[in-house]
Amino acid sequence: MISKKMQQEIAGSSAIRAMFLEGKEMAKRVGAENVYDFSLGNPMTPVPKEYNQAIIDAVQKESSLELHGYMDNAGYPETRQAVADNLNKRFGTRFEKKHIVMTVGAAGALNVVFKTILDPGDEVLALAPYFGEYRGYVANHQGILKEAEPDRSTFQPDFADLERKITEKTKAVIINNPVNPTGVIYSEETIKRLAALLEQKQKSYGHDIFMVSDEPYRELVYDGNKVPFLTKYYDNTFVTYSFSKSLSIPGERIGYIAVNPGMPGCDLACSGLSVANRMLGFVNAPSLMQKALISCMDCTTDVAYYDRNRKLIYETLTKLGFTCIKPQGAFYLFIKSPEEEEKKFVEKAKKHHILLVGGTSFSCPGYVRLAYCVSYEMIQRSLPAFEELAQEYGLV
Amino acid sequence: MISKKMQQEIAGSSAIRAMFLEGKEMAKRVGAENVYDFSLGNPMTPVPKEYNQAIIDAVQKESSLELHGYMDNAGYPETRQAVADNLNKRFGTRFEKKHIVMTVGAAGALNVVFKTILDPGDEVLALAPYFGEYRGYVANHQGILKEAEPDRSTFQPDFADLERKITEKTKAVIINNPVNPTGVIYSEETIKRLAALLEQKQKSYGHDIFMVSDEPYRELVYDGNKVPFLTKYYDNTFVTYSFSKSLSIPGERIGYIAVNPGMPGCDLACSGLSVANRMLGFVNAPSLMQKALISCMDCTTDVAYYDRNRKLIYETLTKLGFTCIKPQGAFYLFIKSPEEEEKKFVEKAKKHHILLVGGTSFSCPGYVRLAYCVSYEMIQRSLPAFEELAQEYGLV
Repeated sequence: MISKKMQQEIAGSSAIRAMFLEGKEMAKRVGAENVYDFSLGNPMTPVPKEYNQAIIDAVQKESSLELHGYMDNAGYPETRQAVADNLNKRFGTRFEKKHIVMTVGAAGALNVVFKTILDPGDEVLALAPYFGEYRGYVANHQGILKEAEPDRSTFQPDFADLERKITEKTKAVIINNPVNPTGVIYSEETIKRLAALLEQKQKSYGHDIFMVSDEPYRELVYDGNKVPFLTKYYDNTFVTYSFSKSLSIPGERIGYIAVNPGMPGCDLACSGLSVANRMLGFVNAPSLMQKALISCMDCTTDVAYYDRNRKLIYETLTKLGFTCIKPQGAFYLFIKSPEEEEKKFVEKAKKHHILLVGGTSFSCPGYVRLAYCVSYEMIQRSLPAFEELAQEYGLV
Repeated sequence: MISKKMQQEIAGSSAIRAMFLEGKEMAKRVGAENVYDFSLGNPMTPVPKEYNQAIIDAVQKESSLELHGYMDNAGYPETRQAVADNLNKRFGTRFEKKHIVMTVGAAGALNVVFKTILDPGDEVLALAPYFGEYRGYVANHQGILKEAEPDRSTFQPDFADLERKITEKTKAVIINNPVNPTGVIYSEETIKRLAALLEQKQKSYGHDIFMVSDEPYRELVYDGNKVPFLTKYYDNTFVTYSFSKSLSIPGERIGYIAVNPGMPGCDLACSGLSVANRMLGFVNAPSLMQKALISCMDCTTDVAYYDRNRKLIYETLTKLGFTCIKPQGAFYLFIKSPEEEEKKFVEKAKKHHILLVGGTSFSCPGYVRLAYCVSYEMIQRSLPAFEELAQEYGLV
């Protein structure tokens, strides 16, 4: 039969599927407009018109064999150059095209990085709460995921715990910034402190420890906040990125890895990433999407739409007495469960037709995630239901 | 630094890169029109116009969020249904959409199948000569690739060796049909014989052994030949496919897995494939390409172009005294090296500006592969060079 590991995975995957099916059932029962589904982090602002036009232009103007054909595993030189130029312009970095590897989304990018750097048994540290898929990505390459706790007053890392969790087996630390599920941005102070810690550990252990960032929400920031660009703080850095959220094109599977030019052994790392892209079966990032990107590096979807949602939901929930970290980026809100068992909070919310995801899915029990990448109208319609939920808990 | 395994891989990859760079160097030295590069298996016949039009139609007519958004990890229902209907119409099979999982090319499909079925230490049997990437795909999932020898008079499998190589650890046999690098089609007799052998082994070992096909050249067949459709011969079959060669779109990364409806535990296998697609970081096959496919299931590139090339190169080389298996499918010709060490034959050919790939790359020393997915004009221009090469070996 299928592998034992996969049988376990299927059993574990059923909770997410169950939530999705429940939402559909609920919509049938009470009408879709009376269901307030805040469970999925799916982009919903428009795809920039320029991007669609760039696709059409490429199909109409380029030679088809070139347009749809194979290229260097790392991507078209023009696309890699466009990414490098854009990063350098925005962040004052010094990427050349050779430092950029185009990938099948950020999920592809992370797997390619882990394939390149992990030997069996190596540990990778994730900062809780974190996107649960990291565990599988690391395990794909025989690594072991470890977790460091957050400081629950700020949801920056708890540095005492982080220091304890970095061992001689630690090969990398994953930094998702802005953070799914909290919507927090790890500050420059946090990044500097982490970099200093890793430098010290590298010296004492005598081997490389990498920072591996996951930055699909980089452009989704609010209140003038900035996301520190990691290569400016630490040499052994791989930045991974996806255009899924900034262009609302998650189904197209396109992102990249940017290797710090200052990484010792940088050229070998770049070669490794290219080889890993091929060996893992990605082979290259989708060609037409690479071509369309070249002229769209400065395009972004309507971030103000998410911001409007953010303000409404955050202000309403805090007025109602819920405790939330104020989100600075991404499109998530992390709410402290008003009762100890967050599963019960999720169930009570469901009775009011509100769908949320328990923090245990992100290794942070006692909290729930609300994704506000939904229509503004749905948030408005949900507010009476949130008020009833707050009343049920005696918060108002 | 990067992982030890990856450092080895980079070292091993350099031969292919070296050949590519040599070809470029040669072109600079002697002029591109005087280089006869038969080394790469890259499609070169036109992308069907209908496919490009389907892309434009999708961009202009569909809602962008739907068009570029996430969908079920297994793909859009309409795309899966279109694949199922097309297979059923052509091969008399009984696929439903639930048996079809859209993937990031056949490379993605194979990795998803291996992730789903392999426990660490499981063996996968490849039939030499075979596409070298299989070794990496199997190793990605902690499997071990074993090889069974060919019958060198026909390049059908050597069944005595194949039987010996199937052990209690064998979880799957890979069947690439038509075959890269030989251009042979495994006959219906071969498939029936293999199926009977695997049924017998399944019974005696008491566990499943899967056939996993890799069929990107299925439509590239000549002389009225047919490729047996494996699910009709053996229950425990996964068929993997890519549109790369049939539509000349290898850069777009789109293919599928078709699960035999007759497989015991079929539903669990389908769930596993979906989960594996997500866990490995593919997540889903590129969305726009899935949409464009729906109306193009019967499109194929200009197969007659490859056939014309095949006839010219095969007839000329055999007239010149080279020994080749007559190719029935794909776009490869497998030539017996006129001297014992095929590396020396490759080197002598290079002196005549002919670029070929040694059979050792496909686990079949003593032969070389010629890829005739090139322009007819290039083949014509190369014929004098082949004649000189034949003279050097005293064949003419």
